Amino acid sequence: MIDCGEGAQIQMQKMRLPMARIGHIFISHNHGDHVFGLPGLISTMALLGRTAELHIHGPQQLQEFLDETMRVYCEGITFKIIFHAIDTRVHNIIYEDRSVTVWSLPLQHRIPCSGFLFRETSPLPHIRREMIDAFNIPFSQINNIKAGASWTTEDGTVIPNERLVTPAEKARSYAYCSDTAYQPCLIEMLQDVTLLYHEATYPEEFIKRAQETLHSTASQAATIAKESHAEKLCIGHFSARVKDEKGLLAEATAIFPQTRLAFEGLNIKL
Amino acid sequence: MIDCGEGAQIQMQKMRLPMARIGHIFISHNHGDHVFGLPGLISTMALLGRTAELHIHGPQQLQEFLDETMRVYCEGITFKIIFHAIDTRVHNIIYEDRSVTVWSLPLQHRIPCSGFLFRETSPLPHIRREMIDAFNIPFSQINNIKAGASWTTEDGTVIPNERLVTPAEKARSYAYCSDTAYQPCLIEMLQDVTLLYHEATYPEEFIKRAQETLHSTASQAATIAKESHAEKLCIGHFSARVKDEKGLLAEATAIFPQTRLAFEGLNIKL
Repeated sequence: MIDCGEGAQIQMQKMRLPMARIGHIFISHNHGDHVFGLPGLISTMALLGRTAELHIHGPQQLQEFLDETMRVYCEGITFKIIFHAIDTRVHNIIYEDRSVTVWSLPLQHRIPCSGFLFRETSPLPHIRREMIDAFNIPFSQINNIKAGASWTTEDGTVIPNERLVTPAEKARSYAYCSDTAYQPCLIEMLQDVTLLYHEATYPEEFIKRAQETLHSTASQAATIAKESHAEKLCIGHFSARVKDEKGLLAEATAIFPQTRLAFEGLNIKL
Repeated sequence: MIDCGEGAQIQMQKMRLPMARIGHIFISHNHGDHVFGLPGLISTMALLGRTAELHIHGPQQLQEFLDETMRVYCEGITFKIIFHAIDTRVHNIIYEDRSVTVWSLPLQHRIPCSGFLFRETSPLPHIRREMIDAFNIPFSQINNIKAGASWTTEDGTVIPNERLVTPAEKARSYAYCSDTAYQPCLIEMLQDVTLLYHEATYPEEFIKRAQETLHSTASQAATIAKESHAEKLCIGHFSARVKDEKGLLAEATAIFPQTRLAFEGLNIKL
């Protein structure tokens, strides 16, 4: 889960997303609209009898609120919460398992703030079943071949790896950048990202207000997506001053056509 | 506002209830499902530029969470929050203005917990316009007549008050009792209440569990309503173990027919 605003657990229930599947929560910064859903989510997990550890990654400032909330409201909780402080100034690996690596992204906001970049571990190529059968390749060799090995038949013929496999799907990636001023140093970190979520609080006409409040315009979000060679861009976090979000969309698509607007419950397939 | 669970501000926005109209919030007890909406509500009030004082009434335990939340998340807030501690063991007036009096109701739960009884100040009778015209009664006398005065005409005839007014509507009242074990001492305090909201966490078959967790059954809620001579009862706070709430309704209506089930967004006219 990335950020946890008020009502996150209610929305999850509506969308039938199982809470038990959440192992790690990544919090970008310690503003209320990104954290006020945590106490309720954790309480409900406890009510549901969770026993698995819950890892929360976020700026150091978050820990105090979390500890205080746990002390008052979650006495005798049935599972352990492990807090991992993020250094919000650097681009570091903050989590890694066999299927995904999570990087921090240094954002620029009024308080320490980090974006997150999820890069899927490169999937392995697919075995061509008919070739395995044709050359009588034993099961024990499958992993080697997936990893790139060729096969030598009994008569000494070498079958190159490319004939034995079809290429893997491209590894997918997702970047989450909210809230931040225009931050061009992200471009290098985000190269070739599959989907970029970037805040677009204001239209370009409010650029001064964006700079003062350390937020971005729709054009700036689109520029980050374009220069990063992202496949898709999703913009969100619109100011209440924005009467019609279509203006923001038009502004962004002029620079980066594959843009869409975020809304509650939006589901994007990568 | 009475209690403020997570998502209260979201629900208010959906129902187009104006936040600015809230002057006093009454919190029954310091469990997460009754207070986790406060930080977000207060933050949004600040965002909307509120300047009016906000009064929060609740058990002393609430103040620490409130202070801590304010310190971390509501720096430079544009309005003052005034906390009023409730003595949850007694039946006292905790608020009063010219239209309503609010009483605490001592509930019995795992932590200090108070219900609330709102009693409207008795409305004044209505002036009969045609009588005022017929007897040429000056405007300056209207308030006296509303307060019960008779009128003496120039020829000395006394027109009794009953001929000059039609009776006032009955003063309305609302009582909120959640969460609590069966608490018969409430009956005396609740006499003739217009609408009683009473928790009914369990059906009667789970009475042992109700006693252990200091909650009530639907039958117990209905008994309180019946013995209090309430006009209407609304039951809520159903356990997740309850598969079909109609069973609770049947159980309650058998004792007190004017019962209905609470649900999100329910609006009851008094």
